[in-house]
Amino acid sequence: MAMERIAPGIWKVTQGTPEEFVATTFNQEKVKLDGLNRLSASETPPFFAEAISFKTTRRGCLIELPLGQKEQIFGFGLHLQSFNATNTRKAMFVNDHQADDDGSSHAPVPFYVSTAGYGVLVDTLRNARFYCGNLAPAGQGAIAFAQDQRKNTIATTTDELYKRRELDQKRMRIEIPLARGVDIYLFAGPTMMHAVQRYNLFSGGGCVPPMWGLGMWYRGFGQYNSADVLKLARDFRDRHLPCDVFGLEPGWQSEAYSCSYTWSPKRWPDPDAFIADMRAMGYELNLWEHAFTHPTAPFYEAIKPHSGDYDVWRGLVPDFTQPQARQLFGEHHGKQLVDKGISGFKLDECDDQPHKAEPWSFPPFSQFPSGLDGEQMHLLFGLEYARTLAQLFSDRNIRTYGKTRASGALAASSPFVLYSDWYQHADFVRGILNAGFCGLLWQPEVRTADSLDDLYHRLGTAVCSPQAVINAWFLPHPTWHQIDETKNKAGELLPDRDEVEQKVRKIFEFRMSLIPYLYTAFSEYRSSGRPPFRALVMDNPADEKLWNLDNQYMMGDSLLVAPKFAAAKTRVVYLPHHTDWYCFWSHRKYPGGAEYNVELPPEKIPLFVKSGTLLPLAKSMEHVKPDSKFELTVMVFGTPANKFTLYEDDGVSLDFEQGKQNLVTLNWTLQAGGSLSREGGFQGERYVVHKWVTVD
Amino acid sequence: MAMERIAPGIWKVTQGTPEEFVATTFNQEKVKLDGLNRLSASETPPFFAEAISFKTTRRGCLIELPLGQKEQIFGFGLHLQSFNATNTRKAMFVNDHQADDDGSSHAPVPFYVSTAGYGVLVDTLRNARFYCGNLAPAGQGAIAFAQDQRKNTIATTTDELYKRRELDQKRMRIEIPLARGVDIYLFAGPTMMHAVQRYNLFSGGGCVPPMWGLGMWYRGFGQYNSADVLKLARDFRDRHLPCDVFGLEPGWQSEAYSCSYTWSPKRWPDPDAFIADMRAMGYELNLWEHAFTHPTAPFYEAIKPHSGDYDVWRGLVPDFTQPQARQLFGEHHGKQLVDKGISGFKLDECDDQPHKAEPWSFPPFSQFPSGLDGEQMHLLFGLEYARTLAQLFSDRNIRTYGKTRASGALAASSPFVLYSDWYQHADFVRGILNAGFCGLLWQPEVRTADSLDDLYHRLGTAVCSPQAVINAWFLPHPTWHQIDETKNKAGELLPDRDEVEQKVRKIFEFRMSLIPYLYTAFSEYRSSGRPPFRALVMDNPADEKLWNLDNQYMMGDSLLVAPKFAAAKTRVVYLPHHTDWYCFWSHRKYPGGAEYNVELPPEKIPLFVKSGTLLPLAKSMEHVKPDSKFELTVMVFGTPANKFTLYEDDGVSLDFEQGKQNLVTLNWTLQAGGSLSREGGFQGERYVVHKWVTVD
Repeated sequence: MAMERIAPGIWKVTQGTPEEFVATTFNQEKVKLDGLNRLSASETPPFFAEAISFKTTRRGCLIELPLGQKEQIFGFGLHLQSFNATNTRKAMFVNDHQADDDGSSHAPVPFYVSTAGYGVLVDTLRNARFYCGNLAPAGQGAIAFAQDQRKNTIATTTDELYKRRELDQKRMRIEIPLARGVDIYLFAGPTMMHAVQRYNLFSGGGCVPPMWGLGMWYRGFGQYNSADVLKLARDFRDRHLPCDVFGLEPGWQSEAYSCSYTWSPKRWPDPDAFIADMRAMGYELNLWEHAFTHPTAPFYEAIKPHSGDYDVWRGLVPDFTQPQARQLFGEHHGKQLVDKGISGFKLDECDDQPHKAEPWSFPPFSQFPSGLDGEQMHLLFGLEYARTLAQLFSDRNIRTYGKTRASGALAASSPFVLYSDWYQHADFVRGILNAGFCGLLWQPEVRTADSLDDLYHRLGTAVCSPQAVINAWFLPHPTWHQIDETKNKAGELLPDRDEVEQKVRKIFEFRMSLIPYLYTAFSEYRSSGRPPFRALVMDNPADEKLWNLDNQYMMGDSLLVAPKFAAAKTRVVYLPHHTDWYCFWSHRKYPGGAEYNVELPPEKIPLFVKSGTLLPLAKSMEHVKPDSKFELTVMVFGTPANKFTLYEDDGVSLDFEQGKQNLVTLNWTLQAGGSLSREGGFQGERYVVHKWVTVD
Repeated sequence: MAMERIAPGIWKVTQGTPEEFVATTFNQEKVKLDGLNRLSASETPPFFAEAISFKTTRRGCLIELPLGQKEQIFGFGLHLQSFNATNTRKAMFVNDHQADDDGSSHAPVPFYVSTAGYGVLVDTLRNARFYCGNLAPAGQGAIAFAQDQRKNTIATTTDELYKRRELDQKRMRIEIPLARGVDIYLFAGPTMMHAVQRYNLFSGGGCVPPMWGLGMWYRGFGQYNSADVLKLARDFRDRHLPCDVFGLEPGWQSEAYSCSYTWSPKRWPDPDAFIADMRAMGYELNLWEHAFTHPTAPFYEAIKPHSGDYDVWRGLVPDFTQPQARQLFGEHHGKQLVDKGISGFKLDECDDQPHKAEPWSFPPFSQFPSGLDGEQMHLLFGLEYARTLAQLFSDRNIRTYGKTRASGALAASSPFVLYSDWYQHADFVRGILNAGFCGLLWQPEVRTADSLDDLYHRLGTAVCSPQAVINAWFLPHPTWHQIDETKNKAGELLPDRDEVEQKVRKIFEFRMSLIPYLYTAFSEYRSSGRPPFRALVMDNPADEKLWNLDNQYMMGDSLLVAPKFAAAKTRVVYLPHHTDWYCFWSHRKYPGGAEYNVELPPEKIPLFVKSGTLLPLAKSMEHVKPDSKFELTVMVFGTPANKFTLYEDDGVSLDFEQGKQNLVTLNWTLQAGGSLSREGGFQGERYVVHKWVTVD
């Protein structure tokens, strides 16, 4: 068994004969070696090849990896319902239904990280199952129920009977169907964060959205026509509601839900004029679509030979791994949409329903011209679809930022954020945490709400996320004018909607003020692989209190977000050790290493700033323009304050990759106060410090 | 491709090279040729071998079978959440969690029947997936959404988007993982009922419970000891509550939930005396267990080499397909339990959790000494476990009747009734219907209730089912003394519990009065394969109103049961064409072919008698004794009345199979009134007609 060092801190172990089509086959991003070189070098793999056992069976292959008794395992993709994966089984199925608890998700990723400070990628597109320490070989027995037996009580609830059990000796056991071998990639630490960074840099580095992508997003009612959209878009400007992106739902197309990728002559009679009007108001346009090409799509006949052998929703399933399919699909999208001024896409239905009686998608035994079968394609489909569309933009030297309902392994550089039809707020927050382990981004969008408090709480999470989206696709009126779907559809608006809108506007403006800070977090996601949104455990793996803390997260390196749920007036927040924290709103100081019961008005999300932070807050703008200049107030939270780097570029092109980027360093000392220095190859200034404000 | 006629109306088509281990490998029952010969002979297979397409792939194999545009497909095992399988996908996974909607169930069966009058068994133990007409090859397209498009409306709810779609051209498509071939069994009609009968007779014919098995069952609180059980059992007799079977939960064993199969010296210090006392009161005893053999089981070391390679709940997983495992497990159970007077077992946890993060059971890649892997074993485990225990009784020439949480294909003759932790009343009723398509029995047990009406409604269904069970395993007091779990545990009993008990007693007595009628239904299940409980569509496949009617069913050939749910005061009942029906309670006559809104007191389940029925109703007894004689009132519902056959034997042994059985024919004519004739080799009389009562 061969173990090969393929990059600093990354090893590949080849077991048996790997399949022709695996996750790495399709990732065209280069490993970000500069980023890897900057990480503290680790010359020892997490474990040696001999510690890995492997065998092939009639079923596929079985792998066993070491797993320590105290190790905690995280990862496996976008999970909304579960967090810590230790002692559980995770199955690599793409699943639109996030109530299933089997490890399936919108974005299953065969990658995990351990609190012991390493990561493992099993390079497969199969429905592999990972048993994270929950299997006991015959005779070794579990200590399950031993405690009950000692107490000599007898369970009388199923919860007691089926509660989690802890084994004495653990192994990570993995079954991969059909494969006769596999490459396993090991990512060294020394910390969990390093392992994740290495994985992201191996994937090509994180994505950097265009600056407008970090503004506010609004998706309009499905039955709007162009006049309806223009009217609402104008209203937003009249009412000074920040909004950068307006999303059009299926109705923009001639066949609506069946995809022709062609404007509806009835609802959008003059798309060029519509786009011009929207852009004149400063809106970027995002178009809903799915990939299942309807007979009315102009390239239907041409793409047919490059499609799978089953239709989905009356449309062909393009084999996006094939250059011809990519070219045909892309050429139309490029010339007819991107070149006309469309800024991005929302990729719907590219996931699957593995446990449903009436799944819409292609079966696992589908055959594609590339030779991939349906099982493999499902683990790749959302990502290859996104890559096809992302390429249109990069070919034109512009950035895009979109939405997708499926992703997978090695997706860090893909500028598409995951979303779901699911709508549990706590699950949405958990999604932010889990996405961060595996190079994914997740958006906890706002649709309706059970109460105004619930609305503000959900908005708080949305504006503290990778993409701040109000998705009103089934609502003729903005959510904040009526939070109840039935009444919204009936036009019964809230009597106090003006007051509500005032609060909502402030929440939007808060998001706008964070753009420079978030742009830094994303820029460093690209260069260092550090996820802009992540679970607290990633920064502090030794703190056992964080192993199951799934409702707080880090936004960038300095802000801790702790959303409130439903109509709760208070929430308990745990603030980690080794530093003090400041309430963003009250500036009250909290020593770390303790829990606090926090009370804030519903429109202020509990947000804590790490001591020693220089936090640049921009004056809100209604949308980001190519020449927007951010007027900054730099908040100095605690001393000594660390330097903070802002990333300065045109905000829309890929020129920053070629050095057309400035690093703007903010510095503050007790002696000298605040200062700003700038270096790099971008001709222009986007940031001006308006004032420095010290806290403490 | 070979097609072989293997019995009257049954053909086998062999495709490729079938696997070594399939469902038929393990069924040791003989095909009931006498029963098949009595069915109207069909010399034409439902379709010819040429109509079946087959190919092997790297993944396994793919089969396509014809499927007509109007055909409706039913079957695939015990489903609680879905009924008509047309246009859906069914996956053959054993699943304890009945909220999953993928075709998995406690008893997946790769057998389906069509309203076109045929049945198909795909002989596999793999997680096969059946796509019942819901896949569209590329370019053929679905007509999904076409209607919406014509209306030119745009969906604004996910329900609208994802609603069921109907294709133009249908096929049954089946993928079997790993297999390089398969035997497909075709069962001829001419009707759906014939196809099901043939399948059941092919399986060995239906099971006939001991007569006591058709009485009332009660499962006591998990924390009871022998004194507690004796006290409650005595109370039942004092209060004249019919009860034939008392079930003991895990606490009877030394290690309770871990299975030692040995009495607890603490809670059951003198099991022999306990058994004697219970039997003296006329109780049969049923013992809870699971198969996962704990180190404290006396045969643990001996059975270890004949067990799977993973422990489940600190116990070994015996390979019940191996004679040694069967013998060791059986010998202990036989000598220590059956020979001491135990009448049956409840086989818990023998199912699986394919979509759970923390499944308790062995993984699909388990290896068993027989050569079976875990995937195959899961589809066989419950049934082979039940067969192991059933054999102990048949070896002793006594019948048993038990409970199991997993079953599968070819199970008709297995005297174990399926149950679940699930508790939705409507789903429980649906289970009765679905079980009837595939040679399964299902018991809708009563535990707690939301209201007294709910209690009576649930009890009504329980006493109109294959096994009438009150399962109070987590309740110290009988459900009808307190329907709420928390209050029951706290000892807060209903103030009006005596009145409630009066009504409950009447419901139990109603069940007891049905025993002769039900005994006929089961005896004919054995000889003719006709399911004793079944969906109405099986009797009337051409009636489109029955294709999705999943909350009414036939009990025997003459009684239509239509349970009420929750606290509903009325319910709508559809009574099929071509006959009149009588309300069992009011004797009111209802012409068939119409819906009626029926109002009855909650303790009277809506029950309709087909016109022309001689219905023998027994005088209630508190339990069935070996020498019990049933005093019958024969109700004559409508004229002319069909003859009715009662089956007379000792009620407990298998001697009836050797001719020690009388057929007792009831006959009634307007001219001659009622008469009874008896023929057969049983020396004795169990039935006496007390009176004849005409209705109409």
